[in-house]
Amino acid sequence: MGTRLSESQQYGHLWGTHELAEVFEERARLQSWLDILVALAAAQARLGIIPSEAAAQIALNARASQLDLELVASETRRTSHSMLGLIRALQQVLPDEAREHVFVGATVQDVTDTWFALVMRDVGSVLWRDLRAIEDVLLAMAVEHRDTLMVGRTHGQPGSPITFGFKVASWADEVRRHLQRLLEGRPRWLVGQLGGAVGTLGFFAPYGVQLRAEFCAGLGLSEPPISWLTSRDRIAEFGALLATICATLARIGNEVYELQRPEIGELREPTTEDTVGSITMPHKRNPEGGEHLDTLARLVRANAQVLTEGMVVGHERDGRGWKAEWIALPEVCLLTGAALETGLRLLSGLIVDVEAMRSNLDGHGDQPASERILAGLTTRIGKHSAQRLMHDVLAPGSRDVHHVFDALVAAGEATEHDRDAWISWEVGDAGIMVDAVVDRARQARSSEPEAWA
Amino acid sequence: MGTRLSESQQYGHLWGTHELAEVFEERARLQSWLDILVALAAAQARLGIIPSEAAAQIALNARASQLDLELVASETRRTSHSMLGLIRALQQVLPDEAREHVFVGATVQDVTDTWFALVMRDVGSVLWRDLRAIEDVLLAMAVEHRDTLMVGRTHGQPGSPITFGFKVASWADEVRRHLQRLLEGRPRWLVGQLGGAVGTLGFFAPYGVQLRAEFCAGLGLSEPPISWLTSRDRIAEFGALLATICATLARIGNEVYELQRPEIGELREPTTEDTVGSITMPHKRNPEGGEHLDTLARLVRANAQVLTEGMVVGHERDGRGWKAEWIALPEVCLLTGAALETGLRLLSGLIVDVEAMRSNLDGHGDQPASERILAGLTTRIGKHSAQRLMHDVLAPGSRDVHHVFDALVAAGEATEHDRDAWISWEVGDAGIMVDAVVDRARQARSSEPEAWA
Amino acid sequence: MGTRLSESQQYGHLWGTHELAEVFEERARLQSWLDILVALAAAQARLGIIPSEAAAQIALNARASQLDLELVASETRRTSHSMLGLIRALQQVLPDEAREHVFVGATVQDVTDTWFALVMRDVGSVLWRDLRAIEDVLLAMAVEHRDTLMVGRTHGQPGSPITFGFKVASWADEVRRHLQRLLEGRPRWLVGQLGGAVGTLGFFAPYGVQLRAEFCAGLGLSEPPISWLTSRDRIAEFGALLATICATLARIGNEVYELQRPEIGELREPTTEDTVGSITMPHKRNPEGGEHLDTLARLVRANAQVLTEGMVVGHERDGRGWKAEWIALPEVCLLTGAALETGLRLLSGLIVDVEAMRSNLDGHGDQPASERILAGLTTRIGKHSAQRLMHDVLAPGSRDVHHVFDALVAAGEATEHDRDAWISWEVGDAGIMVDAVVDRARQARSSEPEAWA
Amino acid sequence: MGTRLSESQQYGHLWGTHELAEVFEERARLQSWLDILVALAAAQARLGIIPSEAAAQIALNARASQLDLELVASETRRTSHSMLGLIRALQQVLPDEAREHVFVGATVQDVTDTWFALVMRDVGSVLWRDLRAIEDVLLAMAVEHRDTLMVGRTHGQPGSPITFGFKVASWADEVRRHLQRLLEGRPRWLVGQLGGAVGTLGFFAPYGVQLRAEFCAGLGLSEPPISWLTSRDRIAEFGALLATICATLARIGNEVYELQRPEIGELREPTTEDTVGSITMPHKRNPEGGEHLDTLARLVRANAQVLTEGMVVGHERDGRGWKAEWIALPEVCLLTGAALETGLRLLSGLIVDVEAMRSNLDGHGDQPASERILAGLTTRIGKHSAQRLMHDVLAPGSRDVHHVFDALVAAGEATEHDRDAWISWEVGDAGIMVDAVVDRARQARSSEPEAWA
Repeated sequence: MGTRLSESQQYGHLWGTHELAEVFEERARLQSWLDILVALAAAQARLGIIPSEAAAQIALNARASQLDLELVASETRRTSHSMLGLIRALQQVLPDEAREHVFVGATVQDVTDTWFALVMRDVGSVLWRDLRAIEDVLLAMAVEHRDTLMVGRTHGQPGSPITFGFKVASWADEVRRHLQRLLEGRPRWLVGQLGGAVGTLGFFAPYGVQLRAEFCAGLGLSEPPISWLTSRDRIAEFGALLATICATLARIGNEVYELQRPEIGELREPTTEDTVGSITMPHKRNPEGGEHLDTLARLVRANAQVLTEGMVVGHERDGRGWKAEWIALPEVCLLTGAALETGLRLLSGLIVDVEAMRSNLDGHGDQPASERILAGLTTRIGKHSAQRLMHDVLAPGSRDVHHVFDALVAAGEATEHDRDAWISWEVGDAGIMVDAVVDRARQARSSEPEAWA
Repeated sequence: MGTRLSESQQYGHLWGTHELAEVFEERARLQSWLDILVALAAAQARLGIIPSEAAAQIALNARASQLDLELVASETRRTSHSMLGLIRALQQVLPDEAREHVFVGATVQDVTDTWFALVMRDVGSVLWRDLRAIEDVLLAMAVEHRDTLMVGRTHGQPGSPITFGFKVASWADEVRRHLQRLLEGRPRWLVGQLGGAVGTLGFFAPYGVQLRAEFCAGLGLSEPPISWLTSRDRIAEFGALLATICATLARIGNEVYELQRPEIGELREPTTEDTVGSITMPHKRNPEGGEHLDTLARLVRANAQVLTEGMVVGHERDGRGWKAEWIALPEVCLLTGAALETGLRLLSGLIVDVEAMRSNLDGHGDQPASERILAGLTTRIGKHSAQRLMHDVLAPGSRDVHHVFDALVAAGEATEHDRDAWISWEVGDAGIMVDAVVDRARQARSSEPEAWA
Repeated sequence: MGTRLSESQQYGHLWGTHELAEVFEERARLQSWLDILVALAAAQARLGIIPSEAAAQIALNARASQLDLELVASETRRTSHSMLGLIRALQQVLPDEAREHVFVGATVQDVTDTWFALVMRDVGSVLWRDLRAIEDVLLAMAVEHRDTLMVGRTHGQPGSPITFGFKVASWADEVRRHLQRLLEGRPRWLVGQLGGAVGTLGFFAPYGVQLRAEFCAGLGLSEPPISWLTSRDRIAEFGALLATICATLARIGNEVYELQRPEIGELREPTTEDTVGSITMPHKRNPEGGEHLDTLARLVRANAQVLTEGMVVGHERDGRGWKAEWIALPEVCLLTGAALETGLRLLSGLIVDVEAMRSNLDGHGDQPASERILAGLTTRIGKHSAQRLMHDVLAPGSRDVHHVFDALVAAGEATEHDRDAWISWEVGDAGIMVDAVVDRARQARSSEPEAWA
Repeated sequence: MGTRLSESQQYGHLWGTHELAEVFEERARLQSWLDILVALAAAQARLGIIPSEAAAQIALNARASQLDLELVASETRRTSHSMLGLIRALQQVLPDEAREHVFVGATVQDVTDTWFALVMRDVGSVLWRDLRAIEDVLLAMAVEHRDTLMVGRTHGQPGSPITFGFKVASWADEVRRHLQRLLEGRPRWLVGQLGGAVGTLGFFAPYGVQLRAEFCAGLGLSEPPISWLTSRDRIAEFGALLATICATLARIGNEVYELQRPEIGELREPTTEDTVGSITMPHKRNPEGGEHLDTLARLVRANAQVLTEGMVVGHERDGRGWKAEWIALPEVCLLTGAALETGLRLLSGLIVDVEAMRSNLDGHGDQPASERILAGLTTRIGKHSAQRLMHDVLAPGSRDVHHVFDALVAAGEATEHDRDAWISWEVGDAGIMVDAVVDRARQARSSEPEAWA
């Protein structure tokens, strides 16, 4: 049982997903490491470095489900070596003649870095799929609410109107850029590692890069131009991208949190009949999904920072930054997976109260038209004169100046004749921008792969 | 099995300690939460809010070992409520007549915040003990090596001599300040939480603060002046302190890492016969403990930052920062525990190569005396003239100016007569400062408690 | 003219204060550095290390206003040495016989670290004064609004009532803890530095610590037990505290931001007649002070993190972390100064709309009483039965369940008879907690010094 | 005179460059803002929104050099509005008939976000040029030292040999990926902003996006699909990239710092005759450039984090994150500029001591061959038997096992016959990887533009 709440039976579901657990859970991870050892042995066998039968035996027996995890752990502790426990446990299930031929010439980091590449492939695929699913929901919502009027808010204060579709399209636009970044970064990330002691492949001479080519190909990874044992920008970039993806989701989550305030009531998170909002205030419906997106983004940001810091490493291998990645990279992946799952659920069931949006807009008198009134007055007396005049008329401190136009009329600066011309819930080109976002996304979607890797 | 490497059988020992696992492990945590519920019930019974028999039954049955964790988890997920799963599972093992009387009027955060206070008490006690143990080792080392000459290094370059005891005393001095901070912060941290829905204790009227006083006393915690549901400076302060403690350990770890370079060879980490340094370069003896201290400090720093960020919360409860604490606070505690254990082991067995220190000092010619030569020359021609002259004589780019004094003689600026007067491995008041640190620490130790809480 | 917006004529006032500019502005800083050199010379003269006349001349002429800053800068660049520019410029204004006697044996870091101590003294004094002024405002406000009813909010959702004084007291409580921390940390921070090349005071033998004692006394600073050239916890602790102070202010700022939403309208920042909220929406009254407090807290947090990271330094001097402090420490000080000034102004003029608070409370029907209704129902059928019943009655998705009690009546679970007993704007012991906070603060204030240092 | 050391005459050169000062310095910035207003007026004139003559007058008179900066500042403070000061000062120098036609319908953020795009264009161009110049130096160095043998180091301990070119190629490889990222991100970053009050372009109806198209085209920027007032991923991405660029430079800087230790002496930073390393230890040659690269990377990382955090913003405009960008974005740009300048200077003059590299390799006995000896022994007795045997022979704690092979011979596990076959300074495919990096880079360089934007 875990010591971290993220690993508890009780709360684990909040900090990861079942799907990603299958990537990171201990046996799954060890299986992945074994797969890497199998690929290494296979490549070595193809080049005649080890006997083919040994490689076959390794392929046959390298099953995490059959390993003695207790032995893995105790040997790891006894030797203080990160990989010897696994090697011993693997050797235990291998026939005698294969035992010497596992893990020949490779180092711990060859395995864990290659695993990182596989992790980024698996996680990147989930991100791609989930971000596209979220985009799909957002595009549909943007289209549906292209012209749904609501108050725009700046600095937390109601201002000129927007449409809800416009707000959503801004989210979708951000998601689309993340998808671009995922595509662009892919060739940098899905790169194997095989370098041996100091990255030169010296152990494997004269096979060196030829062996590495076979090894990477066997795992479906690209080859790097050069070993990247202390060149960690790939990992840092991946983490930084995940931090920004979560930030986008947190932005959405916080928007729901704010607009779900009953005083506003324009959005509401989906709940089920079973959901218990508050145990002491039974009427409460808390925006827990929205909150959680913000929570996750904080943690991902902090861990991603560790990865950037981890780029500053020394010489040909440096345990200080590297081992920090062991914690921080899985953490950003698992939390981002949870964020995407939470975000998708929240958005898919999001309750949009179109009437509340409208009544809020109407409820502020003609304040939301103040930009339009200013535009109207501008045509008459110039922009800055108009702005100054309206500033004076709408004296500060008067909380309830809901009647901007009336105030102008009272001040003799406008006539009833202007009212219809000036007061409008004008949303400018909000709709055109929604269309632009949707079109761009749909075009991209039609030509891009369903699967990322 | 865990999805985080910190939770794996294989590597868990690197990212926590057995002792702290007993604080944070799921059943232990649930037991702690149950203890809090027991204390609440007991307090409520004493005030006549619930029947005494119910409180007694709760005290009798609230055993995490008997709870159906599967039910805890499934009810947590079904209701999306953080505490209902535990309540249901607890009710299951209670007799009918007690079931209604658990968790009466309290909220999730009352439990988890009070748990945080208990956690800080338990973890603080470990910190106090381990920091003092480390200080003990450091003081002994400082005394032993009070006069052990070695090269001082600034900007990575050998400079004037110091003593190894002087270096160690600087560490000890830092540790002592952490101990001070631990003592000072204690009354702020060991404070219970009972506020109900919005912190006013409204549910419990008219018992309110009276109930809270009973509740806190039952757990050995202090009462807060006011509920701190969204006043999170206590947590942030605790986390920030742990980050600085780990930074001190990382500073020590990095020093060992550097001085263990065979080119320097002045310090060496302890290893056992079984330790395998490198699987591809069998001669290697890696400073893994030192590295790991740096690794841990990075992760603790990142998580502590989450706690500071978490102070900026809204209204009377805010899930965004709060839930981030659920991850970040245990994380800083567990990692700091591992850092202290690692640091204590490393320092207790540290191999100090006094001869290497001396031979390194001698190996740089009279360069380490350049400050003293400057001091000598200063008495003759003034500080800045002396500095400028030596600068000119020791032209840049000449890598091997190991013979500062010879160069001055050659330049006609000093005579052989000055040699003995000027060249010395003068360490100034290094010894006096060592004594000051040791005395201050010993004095403090003699009057402070062995146990922190 | 500055390249940073924080240094611009246009915006500089947002990112610092006039008062702190007098600490950090270039000539002020250089004067402070000169004062340190004067203190060094005076101490050296007292011990006979340099001629008294030289010290007198240095004291007489070390005026930043008379220095050729162009020369300071060009010599700094030419020599790549941080202090030689200043020394040359100082020597230029000294009589010949004093020139050799400035900066004898000290290093750059002796000056800049001692300056840091002076900075912490000056800034700490401002913090102390401003935090106490803020506390004063908060205490008065807490007392005034001890019983001013308003909606409590959790997760952004209206819940049980609180009083505005209760909210304010929670802020005051946090401020008081910061004041405690300031007092506790003071003896750790106000400590001079004089160590010479590697911290041993070797240059100064045989005067060493005696000289340091004179030097520190001359500046009104304490002596450290040992040189702290690479022991940076003092700086990190100070920075971390400032980050938490700003976090408290940001918490307040964000609260104002949220409660100033016209849909809530319970608080409003002070503005003047001249304040222009929006140039395109003339009706806008933006919570700019509140926003700015959050902005400042973000920046201070980031820079404070640099200081904690800076503790992990190598050997006897390490430029990497140290030079980062040159930027990060002044930055956290200046920004915190701005935050305190902004916070004090915001709070001093804060407009509290008591009627809006009341009408918001009334506007949610009897929802804010749901905790009390639950308490009432609990006495009848038990806590968990009551909670479950109310959960069922208040089915999720029903946005407008403003009539909790009616729903119970309709469900046959309560009678009109219960109404008066159960429905109340009960704030529990909010008032008692306000009193406790105020009493504790007043007691502390009466016995603590007005001035911090 | 500045309050930040980064803005001081004395030290400003360390924290920015002359070239970037011309982007960020106050008048330069204001000129850039005026250029944006000119472009707006020109676009509005083309569409008939304002008179052509007004636009012409604005173009003629919008000169920062002619503005009354004192007025800009005082009006900014008086109105608490970020842009009104500038508008008033601009109006002051405009003829009457043009005064109303500046800044019509735009908001502060339209100006500052568009400025950010221009900043990213200018700074990106510098990054592109400087990174390519650094790559050029690195490629030449990698080629020159393709086969220069030196000790590889892992965990700070000497291990198998590498070539210096191999180390350098790893740096170049990282730089190349940064260049890729710069190219990929460019279309996302160089995007104007014109949205008005809430981003809908409502003020400008019916011209909306048409006006924005004209406006962006006039500044050489692309149009965004939708306003990005609260979609800040562009800024965050740019900042994160700069943080990783600086991390690469810090990695290089730290490597120089370590290898410049006289105990290693393989690299040395360039200095000039005038450089004064230490004022108290005249023999010192400090790796100040290398250190400074690390310092800069820390500060950039911290500020970039602020930008990522800044993505989590509310509604249609949110001052909290936005204003933090005002500080953090220029800061990351200026510091990164300084880092590139420092890095280029350091690398261009880097002194590579080939003989020291060789003698260090030889100085460790045959330890650097231990991987090869293991490989040899592996062919005889299998990998793991060989590893275990060597582990036993090279018992831990024996500091001076410089003679690995002799130990094997002594143990009867190898014969003199094996010596020549097994002991070699084998660097595997280091050279081939150098070639791969160089070829890839040269190919990319031949087809990519010299100028970035």
